[in-house]
Amino acid sequence: MELERVFHRIDETFDRTVAELTAFCAQPSISAQGIGMQEMAALVAARFRDLGADVLPHGFDSGYPVIFARLAGQSPRRLLFYNHYDVQPPDPLDQWRSPPFQPEVRDGFFYARGAADNKGSLVARLAALRAFREVTGGLPVSVGYVVEGEEEVGSPHLVAFVDAHRAALTGDGLIWEGASADQQGNPVLRLGNKGTLHVELRATGPSSDAHARFGGIFPNPIWKIVWALGLVRGPDGRVRLPGFYDSVVPPSPAEDALYDRLGADAGPLLGRYGLKASFPPRPAREMMVELYARPTCTLTGIGGGYQGPGGKTIVPSAAFAKLEFKLVPEQNPDTLLEALRAHLVAEGCDVEVQLLSRGYPSKTPLDHPFADLVRVTGERVYGRPFTIEPTSSGTGPRYAFTRWSSIPVVAVGGAHAGSMIHGPNENIQLEELRLHTKHVAALMQAMAGGVDASRT
Amino acid sequence: MELERVFHRIDETFDRTVAELTAFCAQPSISAQGIGMQEMAALVAARFRDLGADVLPHGFDSGYPVIFARLAGQSPRRLLFYNHYDVQPPDPLDQWRSPPFQPEVRDGFFYARGAADNKGSLVARLAALRAFREVTGGLPVSVGYVVEGEEEVGSPHLVAFVDAHRAALTGDGLIWEGASADQQGNPVLRLGNKGTLHVELRATGPSSDAHARFGGIFPNPIWKIVWALGLVRGPDGRVRLPGFYDSVVPPSPAEDALYDRLGADAGPLLGRYGLKASFPPRPAREMMVELYARPTCTLTGIGGGYQGPGGKTIVPSAAFAKLEFKLVPEQNPDTLLEALRAHLVAEGCDVEVQLLSRGYPSKTPLDHPFADLVRVTGERVYGRPFTIEPTSSGTGPRYAFTRWSSIPVVAVGGAHAGSMIHGPNENIQLEELRLHTKHVAALMQAMAGGVDASRT
Repeated sequence: MELERVFHRIDETFDRTVAELTAFCAQPSISAQGIGMQEMAALVAARFRDLGADVLPHGFDSGYPVIFARLAGQSPRRLLFYNHYDVQPPDPLDQWRSPPFQPEVRDGFFYARGAADNKGSLVARLAALRAFREVTGGLPVSVGYVVEGEEEVGSPHLVAFVDAHRAALTGDGLIWEGASADQQGNPVLRLGNKGTLHVELRATGPSSDAHARFGGIFPNPIWKIVWALGLVRGPDGRVRLPGFYDSVVPPSPAEDALYDRLGADAGPLLGRYGLKASFPPRPAREMMVELYARPTCTLTGIGGGYQGPGGKTIVPSAAFAKLEFKLVPEQNPDTLLEALRAHLVAEGCDVEVQLLSRGYPSKTPLDHPFADLVRVTGERVYGRPFTIEPTSSGTGPRYAFTRWSSIPVVAVGGAHAGSMIHGPNENIQLEELRLHTKHVAALMQAMAGGVDASRT
Repeated sequence: MELERVFHRIDETFDRTVAELTAFCAQPSISAQGIGMQEMAALVAARFRDLGADVLPHGFDSGYPVIFARLAGQSPRRLLFYNHYDVQPPDPLDQWRSPPFQPEVRDGFFYARGAADNKGSLVARLAALRAFREVTGGLPVSVGYVVEGEEEVGSPHLVAFVDAHRAALTGDGLIWEGASADQQGNPVLRLGNKGTLHVELRATGPSSDAHARFGGIFPNPIWKIVWALGLVRGPDGRVRLPGFYDSVVPPSPAEDALYDRLGADAGPLLGRYGLKASFPPRPAREMMVELYARPTCTLTGIGGGYQGPGGKTIVPSAAFAKLEFKLVPEQNPDTLLEALRAHLVAEGCDVEVQLLSRGYPSKTPLDHPFADLVRVTGERVYGRPFTIEPTSSGTGPRYAFTRWSSIPVVAVGGAHAGSMIHGPNENIQLEELRLHTKHVAALMQAMAGGVDASRT
């Protein structure tokens, strides 16, 4: 079998794959701080060129280039990939056992900033492409590969890039940057993400801090913020904006069937954060429905007046609150921003609402044949069942690809529950790297063969 | 007339009075920073000994001594005085035209930290005592003089001191540290102060900041604080604690008659802080009723989560709010603290209420004969009417003296509306210093003679 020869090649060249991951992770590429970005983009582009890809780094007036690589395949099928070459800042440095940009393998785990998020999955996919080419001289499917450098700073240019290259960005499926195995060690397949609306509420009082003796007659910006927020969400946890829940779709029966399994993660998750119960209190299964299928309304920051120890008797001059909604499909951050502003105006609130960021939900149906193909090919490689997440509980720029097309987007591979993504001692298990490489190879082979997932 | 000779002596020794104020203000005495405190206490004690007073500095295990000076008089009447020898920190230093502890006279104004609050009135009163002794060989009334060193840090030892010396702290009236002339330049006579209850509300969420994806299931400490505060005061400005307004007494007809005059200050006050209207919107006169006769509920600080530019998608681990009530007579901070805690518990709020500071209201009746004597003797000296404030809009430690006795307490003299108390370029008008000196002399003389104020 051709695929077995490819698997064999992946195994016998695995040291090379690890060496390539080492090279990628030894190159800092911190988009938030502008460190090593052009060097990393050049490194990624060179690796695609080595594979014979048609590569064009797309630059912008500001920000970092998108690497867009295309490789022709032997079937009419076309698979897209999305990764990013930037990483989070490595601090706090004193909590790393080995320097973040000096990769080190300990007990089968590979430690470095970016190993899990997401240079590991990028290197694994490159290794799968390479193994196919070395064994068969080509690829079973055409590949379009997008690697941006601004994911960790909110992907400010990705929508414009995708919009400008719609014709070249069609395909039969898109493999997203990556997913982490669940707390039980089962690989995860994730089909979407939530949208986001992050705003800052600002209020003003006297032109400078005033003596608190005037507290009875001067407007107080902290009270303005508190009252406005009280109109947004109540102590029962429900959002009070008119119509907020109108477009929230309950989980389908197929999705609903997934929550028993996902609920197994709830206890360990709460425990890791010193919590005994969710807010509002819910059983584990219901907590997972909340996490994946319902919108959130989270205060991420608040400030105003005196912050030090003890008290200072003032009427402060200004106050703010940062408020983030995560939205499920059919909710729209633009509509919500308008609704929020209108609600606060209608209630007579004297606060300004400034947009910090917005992003759109994106979701691939659970029963999409591509999702099933990814699952089935993966379960053969991993030898264990996948945990299906109907969506991420977080956000991401999938909508750059899905807002104008119905391409199915699936995230798999790369990390485990202890990968410490964004944290110190970020790591990936080398065995996971190997499995993800084989999974991608198996998926390409199956797509070319038009394998009917339902009959496996 | 004896008083005219005393006035003459005050005038001819006025340079000496200014020199004494210079010496007092050249000595830093910053209680909050522990700078120059023992030196200043020694300076004050020495000045009282020069007058022949019986002086005993009373120390405590911590903090700074109280100077308690007693001088016998020629009548059975006894007048008490309260001042403090500590000052506020002088920063921001770059906003001073001359160094804060190098006094400088410019255009009849004396500039130094402490000049107005309140070394000026202390020096004026010492000058009045000295002039009487030099002219008549004695004092018309007995004097008990308390000068503490911790007023600017909340007078933590004053209650204990006064309680320990109740027998020696009786008298026919008490002249409080000082008052500032109003915006129209009329001297102010102030008869009380509000009480205070300053608390910190604290709430916790996950044991460390968590990803905002968990916003739908993790408790959020900022939301807890916001919901708790919404139960304390509503957007109409009304405090929502059960019974909060029950013991608030409406102004008496005599007090009510004062608010037309006090209302003249409302426009300039709002304008100085860039405000066009009060909150809630009220006419000027009503604003003054609010300022003096009603309790306040002021958020003095709030904090939690991400405070920097842009957004950071977290569920924060902790949040706090600082909340200060200013209370009118018949309201009690101890009762209120209990009521606040009980209210939040009853409403199911998961917040902790920590006491930051508390103080009690104190008020001398408008029609007290001592208050009238102070006013009448003052109007003769100043040649213009006094503005009567039934109470201060702020707080202070008068209750240390009034909680166990019915001694009338009146604040007069020392500063003007532009004295920049607690601010840079603090100053006093030399002419005000002279007038306050004469006013105190006239008051002592009148007390000794049992002058009936109503017949002047």
